[in-house]
Amino acid sequence: MSELLQNYFAGRWQSGNGKGTTLVDPVLGTELVRVDSTGHDLAAGFAFARAAGGAALRAMSYAQRAEALVAAVKVLQAHRETYYEIATANSGTVRNDSAIDIDGGIYTLSTYARLGAGLGDRKFLLDGEPQRLGKEPLFQSQHVQVPTRGVALFINAFNFPSWGLWEKAAPALLSGVPVIVKPATATAWLTQRMVKDVVDAGVLPAGALSVICGSSAGLLDQLQPFDLVSFTGSAETASIIRACPTVIRHSVRLNVEADSLNSALLVEGAAAGSEAFDLLCKEVAREMTQKSGQKCTAIRRVFVPEALYGAAAEAIGARLSKTSVGNPRNDSVRMGALVSRAQLASVREGLATLRQVTDVLHDSDGRPFVDVDADVACCVGPTLLGSRAPDSADRVHDTEVFGPVATLMPYRDAEHARALIERGHGSLAVSVFGDDFGACAETAASLAASHGRVHVVTPDVGATHTGHGNVMPQSLHGGPGRAGGGEELGGLRALDFYHRRSAVQASTEVLSKFGPAQARE
Amino acid sequence: MSELLQNYFAGRWQSGNGKGTTLVDPVLGTELVRVDSTGHDLAAGFAFARAAGGAALRAMSYAQRAEALVAAVKVLQAHRETYYEIATANSGTVRNDSAIDIDGGIYTLSTYARLGAGLGDRKFLLDGEPQRLGKEPLFQSQHVQVPTRGVALFINAFNFPSWGLWEKAAPALLSGVPVIVKPATATAWLTQRMVKDVVDAGVLPAGALSVICGSSAGLLDQLQPFDLVSFTGSAETASIIRACPTVIRHSVRLNVEADSLNSALLVEGAAAGSEAFDLLCKEVAREMTQKSGQKCTAIRRVFVPEALYGAAAEAIGARLSKTSVGNPRNDSVRMGALVSRAQLASVREGLATLRQVTDVLHDSDGRPFVDVDADVACCVGPTLLGSRAPDSADRVHDTEVFGPVATLMPYRDAEHARALIERGHGSLAVSVFGDDFGACAETAASLAASHGRVHVVTPDVGATHTGHGNVMPQSLHGGPGRAGGGEELGGLRALDFYHRRSAVQASTEVLSKFGPAQARE
Repeated sequence: MSELLQNYFAGRWQSGNGKGTTLVDPVLGTELVRVDSTGHDLAAGFAFARAAGGAALRAMSYAQRAEALVAAVKVLQAHRETYYEIATANSGTVRNDSAIDIDGGIYTLSTYARLGAGLGDRKFLLDGEPQRLGKEPLFQSQHVQVPTRGVALFINAFNFPSWGLWEKAAPALLSGVPVIVKPATATAWLTQRMVKDVVDAGVLPAGALSVICGSSAGLLDQLQPFDLVSFTGSAETASIIRACPTVIRHSVRLNVEADSLNSALLVEGAAAGSEAFDLLCKEVAREMTQKSGQKCTAIRRVFVPEALYGAAAEAIGARLSKTSVGNPRNDSVRMGALVSRAQLASVREGLATLRQVTDVLHDSDGRPFVDVDADVACCVGPTLLGSRAPDSADRVHDTEVFGPVATLMPYRDAEHARALIERGHGSLAVSVFGDDFGACAETAASLAASHGRVHVVTPDVGATHTGHGNVMPQSLHGGPGRAGGGEELGGLRALDFYHRRSAVQASTEVLSKFGPAQARE
Repeated sequence: MSELLQNYFAGRWQSGNGKGTTLVDPVLGTELVRVDSTGHDLAAGFAFARAAGGAALRAMSYAQRAEALVAAVKVLQAHRETYYEIATANSGTVRNDSAIDIDGGIYTLSTYARLGAGLGDRKFLLDGEPQRLGKEPLFQSQHVQVPTRGVALFINAFNFPSWGLWEKAAPALLSGVPVIVKPATATAWLTQRMVKDVVDAGVLPAGALSVICGSSAGLLDQLQPFDLVSFTGSAETASIIRACPTVIRHSVRLNVEADSLNSALLVEGAAAGSEAFDLLCKEVAREMTQKSGQKCTAIRRVFVPEALYGAAAEAIGARLSKTSVGNPRNDSVRMGALVSRAQLASVREGLATLRQVTDVLHDSDGRPFVDVDADVACCVGPTLLGSRAPDSADRVHDTEVFGPVATLMPYRDAEHARALIERGHGSLAVSVFGDDFGACAETAASLAASHGRVHVVTPDVGATHTGHGNVMPQSLHGGPGRAGGGEELGGLRALDFYHRRSAVQASTEVLSKFGPAQARE
């Protein structure tokens, strides 16, 4: 039997006492390691994180916690090649795709280390200026942000075992809040290894960072009023968490990032073959194939003016036909596998659903995969679908196929485009391509209400823009409605979730004891 | 039969087609008016608010919406005496207590009108400075806050039919978000009348402000992904709203203000008879009797150093014994009635529960009520309870008696006091009394994590502080855990709930089209 990974919980490494679940190489089909969470004393683990981890973190200043994050970054950089090996084996990703997860996670952590250093020696934050209450200036209201006195439970998704950990843990730890991460089972290995390296290096206080792999059974029952939950995954699981009695009873603060039918839009006025047109087609093809389309932010719906439908289909298809799919260990391969047989089945099922209401504009059926046993590997080629009747194609706007699949659709005018995009009922990201600065700005403002991020690509930034699906720590990550209604990252904004805001009403003399405010970002 | 109040819904005044529920004078027992919400086309009403109200509000700038709020303030001021008459009849409150609701509501509305004028001619807000993404300064991230494209549903509490409306509606309307308010049935009259006056005056666009009185049945089923719900009331009802399938499915943004066992604390070092001691005793007596203790923010638990337990009991009791209770129409009366027979029964039941684990330090039993039929009027005198064993008196920390009742408890040291206060599992407000500025500041910071507001009273502000339970629009209103986890008011912070934050990533040229940022508060 393969190795059983240990969980770091209640301040020590311990093993589950069940049979465990086996993690599998999605390309080769081989067994890798096992995970198991059964038999742990959950109450003791949560209590240890809250008491030991929380107290130790809160005793440190922001600058001290930032130093700990810097130390963690160094630990992770030292073990970077091991993480790439685990990613290849467990996620089936090519090196460039592994980098998004691994280096993206380390970059996000180092960004918060830098931001935290700027917050200095304070142990809580001042929020805004004091406001006088009444006519006399003697009695004022000063808002503060103080670290919550609970634990942050992360229930993470399979597609980003590294980045998904650090994009949440960095702001939590910087805020002085201990973390328990429960990674998705399919790819838990990388999360577990990174936590292990950081814990074993002793760069964080005991109880600050815990990991428990396997089933999440019982975890939510441990939540108390000052705890937090951050969840990334399906809308279905999000509903279960929201309806959980402890979450409801204790007003547990919950951040959800769920399904999202992200869009790309070519604004009116850009001709076929124009720079903006080419930038859109290039980005759509990249988004469809990067990480085999297994990104929450990936483009699922593409909207172009009616007259450009055919040209866009052709240009995107031409790019997709260059994508070689197969074993990520082979240098000629550009796109690896999906993460598991279950995901492969899910993508095939979603594709079948969408095919009922769309045309296939580019199909990979029949193209051989490189260097794999097609009966074993969880590989699937990219498929571009299209619908000339987007108003009636309901499924296209509510079925998220978590693989290399997107649907091209024509629109009549700007208002029609906005209405179609909003059929997604709230998404993480939309990208806007065009060459008219004013029209792009106006379109961006009109789409901001339904998207956590609007990515605008004009020809002047064609070479330097950071990519539709790439989540930068400087920008908000999250989206309303179907996307879960959450907010993550956005620079120091991420710290809000882990702090409690309070208005301290007091005499100016009392408020002066709080000292000068931290520097602003 | 008494008059059936009409609902303003779907842009017109309409009557429910049921028998209705009768509102009663809690002092005289007479019937006042009836309310009914049955038979309305709820989908049409919500759609009208979203489409007509939302579009019209969003077409206005913040300054224009602020002007509309100013006009609404003038309308309300013109009808002020009518509101006092309704409050006396329907809430049974003395004039000073009615003022907290009526003038407090108008003041809050005018505060947001002033804040809104400062936001100028923009139609959405810039959030922070642009941040460069990558090495080139050409591609940047600018966060924006745009009005949500949904409707805000308010489900309000019986104790503040005026303030509870305007403290929510002011920031919503200023944000460009249409409002549907469902007031608590027992006191719906004042809410309905205020909305009627403002609607009939034509100072707001059609669909911007709607009112529906009676049952809330079916309202939550109308919610869509960009809608909002703000609820004030019991934790039990909050749980029902949180578990509502539409709320869960659509990630409907929800603000909850629920139960709260607010505390007052005399910090160590202040002697009996000192200024700080006297200020605490005065504030506790005031909080217990103001609005007959029917304030979410009222002091329910009082903590003093062990040595001062007896002296505090005596001093608070002496003040309470001066409170005359009875008919608010009689000038000698300082405290009116509870709002209904149901509330009277609830207070008696809660008092019986607490008496099982406490001593009665001040009892109003046997003191006659002024100018009322004691068998009819919903009057109850103030009761001060006490427990010398606060660690084991669980009920005291989790039973909110919504009337003129508080419990005095001794503590050993600062850490013991904090632990006892946090037995409330999160509260709206705590007040801290002392004469040592440093100790007060430290105590305030340590209590901020479990309270939305910390009110510090030192002798220098003894005459000018704004009161423990008085909610100032400049300060946050809400609290974690048992208090619901919500955030309201806090100046412009209140606008966050009604806006959607989004990161616009674009070329500097595109971002420049957004124009200069609004002025900061």
